[in-house]
Amino acid sequence: MLSYQPDFSDLSYTFGGRSPVMSVKPGTAVSLYTEDCFGGRVRDVTDLPSVVCEFPYLNPVTGPFHIEGAEPGDTLAVHFVSITPARDWAVSSTFPHFGALTSTHTTATLQPPLDEVVWRYDVDADAGIVRYHARRGDFSVEMPLDPMHGTAGVAPAAFETRMTIVPDVHGGNLDTPELRAGVTAYFGVNVPGALFALGDGHCRQGDGEVCGTGIEAAMNTVVIFDVVKGVFTPTPRFETDDALMSAGSARPLEDAYRMSQHDLVTWTAALTGLDQLDAYQLVSQAGTAPVGNVCDPNYTMLAKLAKKYLGTATAYEGTHARLRNFGS
Amino acid sequence: MLSYQPDFSDLSYTFGGRSPVMSVKPGTAVSLYTEDCFGGRVRDVTDLPSVVCEFPYLNPVTGPFHIEGAEPGDTLAVHFVSITPARDWAVSSTFPHFGALTSTHTTATLQPPLDEVVWRYDVDADAGIVRYHARRGDFSVEMPLDPMHGTAGVAPAAFETRMTIVPDVHGGNLDTPELRAGVTAYFGVNVPGALFALGDGHCRQGDGEVCGTGIEAAMNTVVIFDVVKGVFTPTPRFETDDALMSAGSARPLEDAYRMSQHDLVTWTAALTGLDQLDAYQLVSQAGTAPVGNVCDPNYTMLAKLAKKYLGTATAYEGTHARLRNFGS
Amino acid sequence: MLSYQPDFSDLSYTFGGRSPVMSVKPGTAVSLYTEDCFGGRVRDVTDLPSVVCEFPYLNPVTGPFHIEGAEPGDTLAVHFVSITPARDWAVSSTFPHFGALTSTHTTATLQPPLDEVVWRYDVDADAGIVRYHARRGDFSVEMPLDPMHGTAGVAPAAFETRMTIVPDVHGGNLDTPELRAGVTAYFGVNVPGALFALGDGHCRQGDGEVCGTGIEAAMNTVVIFDVVKGVFTPTPRFETDDALMSAGSARPLEDAYRMSQHDLVTWTAALTGLDQLDAYQLVSQAGTAPVGNVCDPNYTMLAKLAKKYLGTATAYEGTHARLRNFGS
Amino acid sequence: MLSYQPDFSDLSYTFGGRSPVMSVKPGTAVSLYTEDCFGGRVRDVTDLPSVVCEFPYLNPVTGPFHIEGAEPGDTLAVHFVSITPARDWAVSSTFPHFGALTSTHTTATLQPPLDEVVWRYDVDADAGIVRYHARRGDFSVEMPLDPMHGTAGVAPAAFETRMTIVPDVHGGNLDTPELRAGVTAYFGVNVPGALFALGDGHCRQGDGEVCGTGIEAAMNTVVIFDVVKGVFTPTPRFETDDALMSAGSARPLEDAYRMSQHDLVTWTAALTGLDQLDAYQLVSQAGTAPVGNVCDPNYTMLAKLAKKYLGTATAYEGTHARLRNFGS
Repeated sequence: MLSYQPDFSDLSYTFGGRSPVMSVKPGTAVSLYTEDCFGGRVRDVTDLPSVVCEFPYLNPVTGPFHIEGAEPGDTLAVHFVSITPARDWAVSSTFPHFGALTSTHTTATLQPPLDEVVWRYDVDADAGIVRYHARRGDFSVEMPLDPMHGTAGVAPAAFETRMTIVPDVHGGNLDTPELRAGVTAYFGVNVPGALFALGDGHCRQGDGEVCGTGIEAAMNTVVIFDVVKGVFTPTPRFETDDALMSAGSARPLEDAYRMSQHDLVTWTAALTGLDQLDAYQLVSQAGTAPVGNVCDPNYTMLAKLAKKYLGTATAYEGTHARLRNFGS
Repeated sequence: MLSYQPDFSDLSYTFGGRSPVMSVKPGTAVSLYTEDCFGGRVRDVTDLPSVVCEFPYLNPVTGPFHIEGAEPGDTLAVHFVSITPARDWAVSSTFPHFGALTSTHTTATLQPPLDEVVWRYDVDADAGIVRYHARRGDFSVEMPLDPMHGTAGVAPAAFETRMTIVPDVHGGNLDTPELRAGVTAYFGVNVPGALFALGDGHCRQGDGEVCGTGIEAAMNTVVIFDVVKGVFTPTPRFETDDALMSAGSARPLEDAYRMSQHDLVTWTAALTGLDQLDAYQLVSQAGTAPVGNVCDPNYTMLAKLAKKYLGTATAYEGTHARLRNFGS
Repeated sequence: MLSYQPDFSDLSYTFGGRSPVMSVKPGTAVSLYTEDCFGGRVRDVTDLPSVVCEFPYLNPVTGPFHIEGAEPGDTLAVHFVSITPARDWAVSSTFPHFGALTSTHTTATLQPPLDEVVWRYDVDADAGIVRYHARRGDFSVEMPLDPMHGTAGVAPAAFETRMTIVPDVHGGNLDTPELRAGVTAYFGVNVPGALFALGDGHCRQGDGEVCGTGIEAAMNTVVIFDVVKGVFTPTPRFETDDALMSAGSARPLEDAYRMSQHDLVTWTAALTGLDQLDAYQLVSQAGTAPVGNVCDPNYTMLAKLAKKYLGTATAYEGTHARLRNFGS
Repeated sequence: MLSYQPDFSDLSYTFGGRSPVMSVKPGTAVSLYTEDCFGGRVRDVTDLPSVVCEFPYLNPVTGPFHIEGAEPGDTLAVHFVSITPARDWAVSSTFPHFGALTSTHTTATLQPPLDEVVWRYDVDADAGIVRYHARRGDFSVEMPLDPMHGTAGVAPAAFETRMTIVPDVHGGNLDTPELRAGVTAYFGVNVPGALFALGDGHCRQGDGEVCGTGIEAAMNTVVIFDVVKGVFTPTPRFETDDALMSAGSARPLEDAYRMSQHDLVTWTAALTGLDQLDAYQLVSQAGTAPVGNVCDPNYTMLAKLAKKYLGTATAYEGTHARLRNFGS
């Protein structure tokens, strides 16, 4: 297993536009560290992001990693073996113009902004819990730890370089709680080596990340890379032991829904040989639609279908099962 | 327990604009029958809705019921004791211009329409399963039965009468799988007697009802009504033994999300005494966002929070617990 | 010419759900009075709408008028001969949760609301000007008078009754500056007599009515009604001496655009015999897209094409030319 | 006056990520050539874009130009002296999944795609007309020539590189007919030298570019550059002799409207000293909202206010007047 621990100056703020930090052979596990979305600078409730962070040095990612043999038109498979909070605390915050229940620079209003407030959570990785503390009053409550990465993806197509805060067909800031350990994520490869990067760990997040941040944490994460040659993936997909998922990232939110459901329907038809409308009907009754983010430059929704509804169909030539066994 | 079995000619196609079919005292259980969204006219795969159904005689509801003592400004509580498919079959269909993965009269395109196709499901209420059959090919698969009502609500405010296909703050065609047995639904009362009506049973549906219909079925349903005096409910809310939910119905879909999350945040603050931003943070990390419909004239999303995160707070003076015990 | 002057108690707050105030033969001109959107209760800058007005008694309309011989499936033509401000003042206001640059009950945020502020304009109908006065400071400027009606329509289909604040395929609160004198408006007839009503005069308004109100004024207006038998109009259309227009009302705003452009493209194809894609291309290069409202429950956009691009085609059998001559 | 004629291999397909082709002093006029959005490869109705063009080599721009002295935080002013079609023909087309009246990869549907069709226009620059020819049938009609650039902008902030098809706060593919000769465009500078590029000439376009393309043409264009030091422009703005305009690019379309109106309101307040709500009211009644595109990855709308409503206020220290005189 390879290991990669970035210095602060090694962190990246874009997908694309950066040289790889390491070259990795397919089938290799890598243990890596990711900093939190604030670059580790918000450590207490008095550390306001607008004061201690500097645009555009937000939402750093670790990488990019060059995966050997990955070429445009292939699919990069990334199996998440483990995601573990690196500290015994984590933070969350509101922002003046970011989040779902505030005006933003696009949903622009003339109202006064929301207050910028920071919450600090206690993290007990062994017990598998995080503890919330109200800022005004002494209310406190435990929630289950459910570690995930908000940001994961590859270099975009068409010579683009995108801020890490943006989710799109290359991945990026999908901010979905479905990207947890045990998942294999698939990304279409746009440039030689794919240039995968990872960051934005959350101890957990609610659906939609409504205030604009999860419970933000540095993470120690183990992934295994693989390359599926000659098969392109049009938008990020996830696979678990039990389910397939397609991600859609767009605005308005119904387009994120349409993209994700459309990909799941056509993928289901391709896997099973079902007619497209038959697959549409099956997904309509058996599918779910986990909400990713409703706060980022594109919103993200997933379309999810239990494998038990797919008969004997196998995705990506059994890549998930292979990586999962490798990882265990 | 009262019983109500409508004739076909008793069915209603609007919320508001109709005289009540029955007057009911609070605390009374009513056993009633609801026809399916096609008025029972689609019985086989050859019964195309566009041929056998006639606009606007679609999505019939049973009622309205006048609840004694319900006055504008109060809240009507409706506890769903049981929802049971009335037949051993159910149907679903695509439509030429209805559903999430097709153009519609508002998302208007110049493309050819989708085919109109009907699927007929086998329903085994005792075994708790429904069986899907592909139309082209012999693929077939079982899914768990999870009966629900797509349409439930009261007469709208401001002298309005709305088609039953529309979801809004009066309820209506919310089309959420969360409206199943065991739930208490709360609606703000706009007119004397509230004028509650119910229909559009689904044996189950996927999140978003992506093709435009669930597994549509006539239902035998038992509800108990109650009135919470002097408390208005701004948008439909649901309560189970374990969770609170707020519904938002709007377009674009992010506004359905915003409405539902905003109501859940302010409701949480009111129930717990938490500061509004503290409640925002709590919901941001602990809340979920079940998707209702992404196909109706308004889209519907729910915001849901487990009661365990609310300390000792009790909603609507314990109405759910009281009705639940009554119902069991 | 008939004349109709409503008492305050005669005003209506819905389309549909009301008995006609008068029956009118096609080809008849009617002189009528409309109250402003505040019911005339906001007369000075100290009259805050939230204090002097009472929901749902907002945006009153005059009517409905029963047009003899109009049957479902026909088209009602309404030619606007003249629209004249009835007073030498008019008012406008912001609202706490209404308008494009504020959160609303659907675009819900947790921010403090905008201030509620009233502006009073001087109206000089003879000189054709209105005068704006800033509330804070002594800035003042004249603008051209351009009188229009924000609200005009017929009873909806499908047994619906809608608040006058809603624009949809029945017309209603379109809030477009294109509805000025000289225009013939066409509405599909849904109920016997059509039940046309009119209100919400503006001395002028900017595109989108961004703050939520125009320069609101009572109006003395002359219209001529006609009925085009056996031709249905799917969404409101306007005709002037020089142009044809289709209105689309929906959310999100791109759907209002799509609806209006789709109707103009298919209408152009029908009028000219052009292939649908040829009409699409013609409208794409020669058409304009006047913005109606971006603040009401549905947003409204128009698609507009100069008649000079249509060859010799004539709409609605020359109804506009006939009514225009009648009116002059 | 400098002159720049790119070879085909000099064309660029991104904003950002490219070295400058030329360095220009402020106050310098540059005569340059831009290729059409198809790279000149669609020359007749049989040249289908999907066959003769290759993704991502679409929508080429000329440049980027390094403007001396332009630093992050400054504003680049670009005055358009003249825009002249370079050929006596131009082309337009539909695409399978691009345009407002078709499904796209985000507004994804399961319907068959639109046909891909090309139209070729005759261009008579001296007479100031373009001629449309229907593809099926012999209908033909003249329209006024109104040359404009669909794509103009600077390198983005935050290390981003964006495809030229994307409009955003850096400019890009705004696709507004308001970007014609006589206009001064203002862009916030994000990188040293600003790195301005220009392309996508249209002989004219309708509002919204509903089919996805204007009347696409190579152009000979003269611009004059200037730099306004120490003043940043948050989103592209335009100035003519008579009006000020702010551009907003976002999805859904109401957010493009909100962005543009918000910028115009706050700019108006800053220029005149008016209170922000007074400026809101003034723009609400006197402003217009020209529609740019409703087909690109972000939609674009403008907010426009006649200067006559602004008293004696002058924008950007009189830059427009100065460049306009220079250019004439």
